[in-house]
Amino acid sequence: MDFELPEDLRMMREQIRRFVDKEIIPTEREAYDGPEMRPEVRARLEARMKEMGYWLITTPVEYGGLGLGLLARVLLWEEMGRTIALPSRKTQIFGPEPSPILFQLNEEQKKDYLLPVIAGEKDCCFALTEPDAGSDPAGIRATAVREGDNYVINGYKRFITNAQHSDFVQLLVSTDRSKGPRGISAFLVDMDTPGVSIVRAQPTMMDDEPCELAFDNVRVHASKLIGREGDGFKLAQDWINTGRIRHGARALGVIRRCLELATDYSKQRITFGKPIADRQAVQWMMVDSHLDLEQLTLLVYRAAWRYDRGEDVRHDAFAVKMLGDRLSFQAADRCLQIHGGIGFTKELPIEKFWRDQRSMMVTEGPEEVLRMSLARHVLEAYAG
Amino acid sequence: MDFELPEDLRMMREQIRRFVDKEIIPTEREAYDGPEMRPEVRARLEARMKEMGYWLITTPVEYGGLGLGLLARVLLWEEMGRTIALPSRKTQIFGPEPSPILFQLNEEQKKDYLLPVIAGEKDCCFALTEPDAGSDPAGIRATAVREGDNYVINGYKRFITNAQHSDFVQLLVSTDRSKGPRGISAFLVDMDTPGVSIVRAQPTMMDDEPCELAFDNVRVHASKLIGREGDGFKLAQDWINTGRIRHGARALGVIRRCLELATDYSKQRITFGKPIADRQAVQWMMVDSHLDLEQLTLLVYRAAWRYDRGEDVRHDAFAVKMLGDRLSFQAADRCLQIHGGIGFTKELPIEKFWRDQRSMMVTEGPEEVLRMSLARHVLEAYAG
Amino acid sequence: MDFELPEDLRMMREQIRRFVDKEIIPTEREAYDGPEMRPEVRARLEARMKEMGYWLITTPVEYGGLGLGLLARVLLWEEMGRTIALPSRKTQIFGPEPSPILFQLNEEQKKDYLLPVIAGEKDCCFALTEPDAGSDPAGIRATAVREGDNYVINGYKRFITNAQHSDFVQLLVSTDRSKGPRGISAFLVDMDTPGVSIVRAQPTMMDDEPCELAFDNVRVHASKLIGREGDGFKLAQDWINTGRIRHGARALGVIRRCLELATDYSKQRITFGKPIADRQAVQWMMVDSHLDLEQLTLLVYRAAWRYDRGEDVRHDAFAVKMLGDRLSFQAADRCLQIHGGIGFTKELPIEKFWRDQRSMMVTEGPEEVLRMSLARHVLEAYAG
Amino acid sequence: MDFELPEDLRMMREQIRRFVDKEIIPTEREAYDGPEMRPEVRARLEARMKEMGYWLITTPVEYGGLGLGLLARVLLWEEMGRTIALPSRKTQIFGPEPSPILFQLNEEQKKDYLLPVIAGEKDCCFALTEPDAGSDPAGIRATAVREGDNYVINGYKRFITNAQHSDFVQLLVSTDRSKGPRGISAFLVDMDTPGVSIVRAQPTMMDDEPCELAFDNVRVHASKLIGREGDGFKLAQDWINTGRIRHGARALGVIRRCLELATDYSKQRITFGKPIADRQAVQWMMVDSHLDLEQLTLLVYRAAWRYDRGEDVRHDAFAVKMLGDRLSFQAADRCLQIHGGIGFTKELPIEKFWRDQRSMMVTEGPEEVLRMSLARHVLEAYAG
Repeated sequence: MDFELPEDLRMMREQIRRFVDKEIIPTEREAYDGPEMRPEVRARLEARMKEMGYWLITTPVEYGGLGLGLLARVLLWEEMGRTIALPSRKTQIFGPEPSPILFQLNEEQKKDYLLPVIAGEKDCCFALTEPDAGSDPAGIRATAVREGDNYVINGYKRFITNAQHSDFVQLLVSTDRSKGPRGISAFLVDMDTPGVSIVRAQPTMMDDEPCELAFDNVRVHASKLIGREGDGFKLAQDWINTGRIRHGARALGVIRRCLELATDYSKQRITFGKPIADRQAVQWMMVDSHLDLEQLTLLVYRAAWRYDRGEDVRHDAFAVKMLGDRLSFQAADRCLQIHGGIGFTKELPIEKFWRDQRSMMVTEGPEEVLRMSLARHVLEAYAG
Repeated sequence: MDFELPEDLRMMREQIRRFVDKEIIPTEREAYDGPEMRPEVRARLEARMKEMGYWLITTPVEYGGLGLGLLARVLLWEEMGRTIALPSRKTQIFGPEPSPILFQLNEEQKKDYLLPVIAGEKDCCFALTEPDAGSDPAGIRATAVREGDNYVINGYKRFITNAQHSDFVQLLVSTDRSKGPRGISAFLVDMDTPGVSIVRAQPTMMDDEPCELAFDNVRVHASKLIGREGDGFKLAQDWINTGRIRHGARALGVIRRCLELATDYSKQRITFGKPIADRQAVQWMMVDSHLDLEQLTLLVYRAAWRYDRGEDVRHDAFAVKMLGDRLSFQAADRCLQIHGGIGFTKELPIEKFWRDQRSMMVTEGPEEVLRMSLARHVLEAYAG
Repeated sequence: MDFELPEDLRMMREQIRRFVDKEIIPTEREAYDGPEMRPEVRARLEARMKEMGYWLITTPVEYGGLGLGLLARVLLWEEMGRTIALPSRKTQIFGPEPSPILFQLNEEQKKDYLLPVIAGEKDCCFALTEPDAGSDPAGIRATAVREGDNYVINGYKRFITNAQHSDFVQLLVSTDRSKGPRGISAFLVDMDTPGVSIVRAQPTMMDDEPCELAFDNVRVHASKLIGREGDGFKLAQDWINTGRIRHGARALGVIRRCLELATDYSKQRITFGKPIADRQAVQWMMVDSHLDLEQLTLLVYRAAWRYDRGEDVRHDAFAVKMLGDRLSFQAADRCLQIHGGIGFTKELPIEKFWRDQRSMMVTEGPEEVLRMSLARHVLEAYAG
Repeated sequence: MDFELPEDLRMMREQIRRFVDKEIIPTEREAYDGPEMRPEVRARLEARMKEMGYWLITTPVEYGGLGLGLLARVLLWEEMGRTIALPSRKTQIFGPEPSPILFQLNEEQKKDYLLPVIAGEKDCCFALTEPDAGSDPAGIRATAVREGDNYVINGYKRFITNAQHSDFVQLLVSTDRSKGPRGISAFLVDMDTPGVSIVRAQPTMMDDEPCELAFDNVRVHASKLIGREGDGFKLAQDWINTGRIRHGARALGVIRRCLELATDYSKQRITFGKPIADRQAVQWMMVDSHLDLEQLTLLVYRAAWRYDRGEDVRHDAFAVKMLGDRLSFQAADRCLQIHGGIGFTKELPIEKFWRDQRSMMVTEGPEEVLRMSLARHVLEAYAG
């Protein structure tokens, strides 16, 4: 048993933490213009990451990437989570981040889709959610019907991040509605295929604009099917798991930053004759965030460590996602309360953390859905 | 003992509720353009209010107003609180709302300030908060020093709503810092007086832009002092009390609307084969909001009823403000959670309620400060 | 609208409060010997109640009682709730308390059961709960089958308070299981009828010992049926409603006493150089209990006021029961925490309040069951 | 990094878990007679422990004990925490458990006190808490004044567990009140020394009876001083730290058992036509306890692992104690709620866990005191 990070990962984390502190945080409130990161900011930060050797971190070595394990990535996400300068949902500044799905393509598909993504020549998005089906795969109504060598796709997808900048979409639709979740299949669909359209962007309170996509008699060749019919969820599972652990990693960074902001401010801010850091109401809030951070850190690292060992981390990912999002939102909320009025202004990063983390609580599995699965697990795990 | 509203007030409330439902809610998402209500929307709604006879509701009859009691106003605020179309902090659509301070002016001051406000010829703001003094009056650093017939004012004020549109400011500064809260005095200061400047507007996450004001050797004639030196807080107390009860009234409307939205949506939204309205996780949230609304309603109405009877409502106002803001935020948060992703978009009013009510929890007395006062009260009230 | 208690009720409450303070609280820790109040204590207190004119408070005037309205009774229960000397579940010290069911008997039944109860000659209990059916009436398995002029009763009942001292039981069983709740009927069964037995007393953590009853081919004459077959729940409804409101009334007394104990102790107890009453962690707890008490008071009084007006108070009773039990438990829990170690000893009443109120949260409808009913109500009440 | 327990510890835990399941739990409700474990039950279980080789677990090898590390002991405490048959506060069934203080005695003192304890010939208690000083060492009023070769001790001690069965007491008193915590010294005082008396036992709601001790001009020879004057807290610190971690270990067992009871019962118990295990209100409670257990386990094991590596675990111990006690109480409370009425009876262990764990929240440092220390730590640890 050993609760310490290995030396190399500890050093990597320190390096990234300093980078965030010195090169990102000082200008974080200027990094964005509306829903998008300013191109010059992105270019500058990406160049620095390349210099420092953090490029293509998720891409395996055989494709020219760093092939970092999940524990290492968790540490990077954690440190990057300390600033609002970086997108909470989209690719960050480590270069292209092809989804695990793309590494499961066949060779020909890889040539057309995976390699261009790695090379930065193509961008893509992932489309699962529908107006009437978020977390419930059996509710998916978009269908692909085989007609000769083609599939004909019809349906709507909602809340699709990055669709505006995508060359193709990794699309999950039903090829057999009678099979429920096991009838879901994954396709590669070029965005310029006739019948594919972006119906609208939906501005949100997080300042981003996910898209609603329509598929109207879209014909794609059968070679665009990934794996076999019915493989959809199996293909996506790894991405879903690591994506949920990423929520937890980001949460660690958010909580830490909120604690840094809150401890600093509370020592300076004087009311009724003494710093608010001396008041129990304020102290208790910071102690709560600290205890949450201590516990969550262990849970997130263990999940990543288990993943790297090849264990099934589905339940770990549920817990890490659910607790990470909730606890980091609460940490941001406490930080907001401690700052009073100034916390609500756009001069400080707090209100952005607060909005973002609240939305995280719903993205990629709201608590209620994760709890339904966890309950089944608990009812088995503790049975006498 | 009688827990029913009198018939006339009940009818008034019904009328306003219908008006909000039919004439405001259907277009609420278009009512704003940035931080300000669209002028044509405001004009249309004000015209309707005038027609319906709800004009100058807070102004006493002797000044040509309706002179509604606080309980009646509470009902109006409650109903208006059901829509995000109306400003949560500024004057609504019942015509000018001169602060209680202005009715305490002397006759000459009234002629120059109160009457033009009632006539809609002058607009004004109220300035108490400073960068280092929000809820702690003893922390006020802005000063007015008597020099001959004049006072010379220096200092900063922060988070001043409506300063951009004001002709004058009701300004609280210290005329004697050795006296703490009892050294605070109130002045009428024209915004075009030399030395008065709006340093900047501070955009907030609620989409509004309160201002920071600087007073640099501002000379005002002694006739601009309201009441006597040291009267500042006494003059403002009534406004503070009724303002806090207004928080509670608005909260009632917010909770009700969130319940309406949540019950409707939860019956339509189907996941895993049944409406989410059938799930206990969703039901419990709605039951909690309902129980909060039941209790809060009684507390708010009793506070207003006591005010109208001339009782001291300081502690009632603390409770109503604190609970109202918190419970309505929680109701909005639950409504958001029940709606999932769609709740975060700007197509529905939920996210705006959610942002607004969170900020209310800090405005006009954060919970921590109100609790300090309430604790003193409790320690006396239950002593053996 | 009028939030003040009428003068006569206010005076009554003051009188009872003084009585509790002077004559009960000083000896409350000696009032009990195991599960039962000491007979001499009960005799003394009942004598005093008679003297003061508070006797047979629930019995209508035509039967020689006081016939107090529910609001008046709420005030008595509230004040009596301030001490652990009195039973939380059984008859208190106001003389016999015949259940509302007994007033619905026919004339002959009244002569045999109601009048002896009023006269103090007979004691009784009420049996609804079964090992497999608490809050769900459709789950009742005990049956009464008509055979000629008799009914033959079989089944088990659990958690029957006062069975040991009862001459007869008001028994709810199914006369037609196919009809679910509408097949439940009520009988008067003498405890000495052959086949009736007390299987065992079950000691609980509240120091009482409710009984498990067995009915083994118990033959009762058809004249022992109350009302008609299937009337069982209708007959019991009034008792259930007023019983739930009584939970709320008792809760008011518990919260108040806990606040009195906590404020007194916190001013005396010094740690780290100052009274704990000066610490926010302690202050916040007391403020929370105070705010809960303010809100709950209005809710409980309104429910009783509505009942006295003849309104349907089923949903009021749910809310009052659920919130009353929970909030009073929390008040006791805070009081315990504020007292530290000494609070756990049997020298102070706190731990008894704490145990009792926790059990109240399950008795006569646990929160989960009440919420299921309230959810149905909410889904209708706020529908667009 | 390695989150798995070493093989030998895992096997040890399995063995003990089976032992608890098969040999203790089946008779746990009969293990006690009032405040004390029945002697025959204790004898039987101790004999079994000896057989299995778990004897003198905390005593170092050089004194004939097992000298288990803290992580190993944590696992034993965790498994033993699953049953109410064993005392929550006193020595369990692993033989004598001399406190860490006794290993710091000088050789002569060891001969008189440590060795007889290890041999089972002497029993002892520890006395720190006073009527006016629990968690605040500077509040200690009991004093020892040097007079020639003796110290004269005066004062009161409260909540002393096991005093009735003790041959001597490890006593903390002030030898120099001007020095506050640094003036506290530790003495070995034989219980039969003139002037030492047990004033009374104070029955608590947990069924135990800690004692109040009086020291009235008690003369002890200077050779009974442990270490030097002022060493009192330094000597006790190790015990306090490991004691707090023991709270966390026990909590793990309590939460696990409550989950086992709750999952089993919820599958059997049917209301309104289906098992309550199918209801979200019940599922959510179990998921919460499960997530708490997952996080707490990591925190407790890490604290013990750090201790075994010789690191300073003061802050770890605060967190583990505070969270462990609170989360295990909540798990017991949820289990109680899930069981409904039957949970309150003395036929099931739930109500005992519930009472015990609530009291744990105050013993050895209530949350409020631990938070004061943690707040100082947090304000430093996250400073920019």
